[in-house]
Amino acid sequence: MNQPTSTPLNYEQAGVNYDLIDPLKVAAQRAAAATAGNLAGHGVAEVAASRGESAYVVDVGPFHLASIVECLGTKTIVADEMARLTGRSHYDAIAQDTIAMAVNDLITVGATPLVVQAYWAAGGSDWFKDADRAQALTRGWQAACDACGVAWGGGETPALAGIVEAGRVDLAASCTGIVNPKSRLSLGDKLGAGDAIVLLAASGIHANGLSLARKLTERLPQGYLTEIAPGLSYGEALLAPTPLYANATEALAKAGVPVHYAANVTGHGWRKLMRHPGRFTYRIHTLPTVPTVLAFMAREAGLDDKEAYGTLNMGAGFALYVPASEAQRCAEVCRAAGHAAWVAGQVEAGERSVVIEPLGVRWAEGDLHLRG
Amino acid sequence: MNQPTSTPLNYEQAGVNYDLIDPLKVAAQRAAAATAGNLAGHGVAEVAASRGESAYVVDVGPFHLASIVECLGTKTIVADEMARLTGRSHYDAIAQDTIAMAVNDLITVGATPLVVQAYWAAGGSDWFKDADRAQALTRGWQAACDACGVAWGGGETPALAGIVEAGRVDLAASCTGIVNPKSRLSLGDKLGAGDAIVLLAASGIHANGLSLARKLTERLPQGYLTEIAPGLSYGEALLAPTPLYANATEALAKAGVPVHYAANVTGHGWRKLMRHPGRFTYRIHTLPTVPTVLAFMAREAGLDDKEAYGTLNMGAGFALYVPASEAQRCAEVCRAAGHAAWVAGQVEAGERSVVIEPLGVRWAEGDLHLRG
Repeated sequence: MNQPTSTPLNYEQAGVNYDLIDPLKVAAQRAAAATAGNLAGHGVAEVAASRGESAYVVDVGPFHLASIVECLGTKTIVADEMARLTGRSHYDAIAQDTIAMAVNDLITVGATPLVVQAYWAAGGSDWFKDADRAQALTRGWQAACDACGVAWGGGETPALAGIVEAGRVDLAASCTGIVNPKSRLSLGDKLGAGDAIVLLAASGIHANGLSLARKLTERLPQGYLTEIAPGLSYGEALLAPTPLYANATEALAKAGVPVHYAANVTGHGWRKLMRHPGRFTYRIHTLPTVPTVLAFMAREAGLDDKEAYGTLNMGAGFALYVPASEAQRCAEVCRAAGHAAWVAGQVEAGERSVVIEPLGVRWAEGDLHLRG
Repeated sequence: MNQPTSTPLNYEQAGVNYDLIDPLKVAAQRAAAATAGNLAGHGVAEVAASRGESAYVVDVGPFHLASIVECLGTKTIVADEMARLTGRSHYDAIAQDTIAMAVNDLITVGATPLVVQAYWAAGGSDWFKDADRAQALTRGWQAACDACGVAWGGGETPALAGIVEAGRVDLAASCTGIVNPKSRLSLGDKLGAGDAIVLLAASGIHANGLSLARKLTERLPQGYLTEIAPGLSYGEALLAPTPLYANATEALAKAGVPVHYAANVTGHGWRKLMRHPGRFTYRIHTLPTVPTVLAFMAREAGLDDKEAYGTLNMGAGFALYVPASEAQRCAEVCRAAGHAAWVAGQVEAGERSVVIEPLGVRWAEGDLHLRG
């Protein structure tokens, strides 16, 4: 394994410039908020606190309706490259990643996911010629739906030559669910000082930080085939599928563990722990195990702890905020559902910030811009 | 205006090869159908008759839930080209087209659309630099949501360099709605011989047949700027936004006009009139006005009536199947909602087929493959 070079890599060098995207995003958020009144004509109303949260919630009377659309991002490029190098399609894992992007966001509001729709936009009809890849994608999509207890409703498989690059596919998923009973709604109004933070294990990079991950291969003499542990290539490790946390949130509901808030740890890494807009300090005392591939990336890209934890999930895929008295039981229920889990910290009154005590890392309010 | 050349254009020459896509589509439909049982764990059940229809429906108890994701396709390429030629962004119209793709499908099952999510995947951060285009897209999206009475819940604006082509954007929309009361469900079990077919006016090409439309510009000496009527360029005419028919279906429900079935006329043109799987002949006696741009395309591409009506909407954007006794009232309610409407034909017992009597055109069952 080679040594880190002297120049650290960061996310902007790796190709995504949020300064260009954010003005549109803010304008879109404002325009979207202005449409809420349209629902009155149908006798229903938005749950306004869901604006800016990970899924949009509408009160339809007997329960709440939650919906979302989410994109996989550029992880398919890694899968395509690994298929070229090894002859094996990882599109079954890629399918799970795509569904995880939608479902893991939807469940943060307390919703039970019910229906997933597939959006597979290929760069022309030829993309569909590779039967192995198509079968892997279909098989993985079905398995992921089964794993989170949702029905695969249908979807779109357009051939978009001229929009999507030849040989590539743009994968996304929409998900619809219900919050039932309504008391499961976890938009954060119940979040309070003293609550515990329970972190659920990540399996690897998931689908955020892939631009950085791809950029890094340029520094690796064997690229994606670089061994990062005995018998494990960098490419294989990157393609570990994202866990589906819906079985954990459903098990918590069944067990009667109240969830005050939840955050899906995606872009912005651990800065997402202060996703809630309230004035709270999130103090972490226990760190989850860092997946091998993320430790490797942090080292090779020359990221310090603040950069690594502020960009990648570093082992924390999902965060649950529960009453302190329920923290151990929350972790146990999640473990029983198959997820390693840590009672990792607590919520305190104070400046909106995240403090990772074991690393001496701190982010303040200005380090996270998610709301318009 | 130039004369048609001797070689007619068809859809496959224009770039979409369904023979390559269909095997995956069929495999995906089968895999999707196999996931229906997952809903039992949540105490809800799919409405099986919605498999193969335009939106997926789940019975959640007090009402049905309907959901869908739909793609705009390649119409943005026309908008991009026209912006280059004229300096004006048509992304407000493009936004309406994208929402129409989702909403006009969702309402076919009898659903009231409630929430739209935006999926705007750009070919890199630079796409967002064009503030005029971004503003037009946002403005048009909001206006279209207002026009169909839905809340814009949120969405995704990823920068996907390496997946989406530089300078392009992949636009899609998901939509969630409810069928309430459940008696509004229009999956076709009520469709019967004697029902009338009411056609609602199209505004132009909508978002299907764009590959053909773009291919055609190669034959036009002035390309998109070719005048097809005084003061109207081919490009401008192509970019007339798709009507949103949700106000018509909502008005019909309010007026108590029972809708037995509905079809959104998109790809496959009028062959879509036999979308329902039953053994019925759909006999058309009255033709809607053909939009100027579609008459121009049919002529310039050398399409005969069967090809033109079997590929393009030729003026019929949406079809409603209602009891014959309600046909005139159905048309009147739709006109009052702002849509030109024609009582255009009737449903007969017989071989599954579409017969356009004024044109001597007929399609049989084998001419439409939509279900897996």
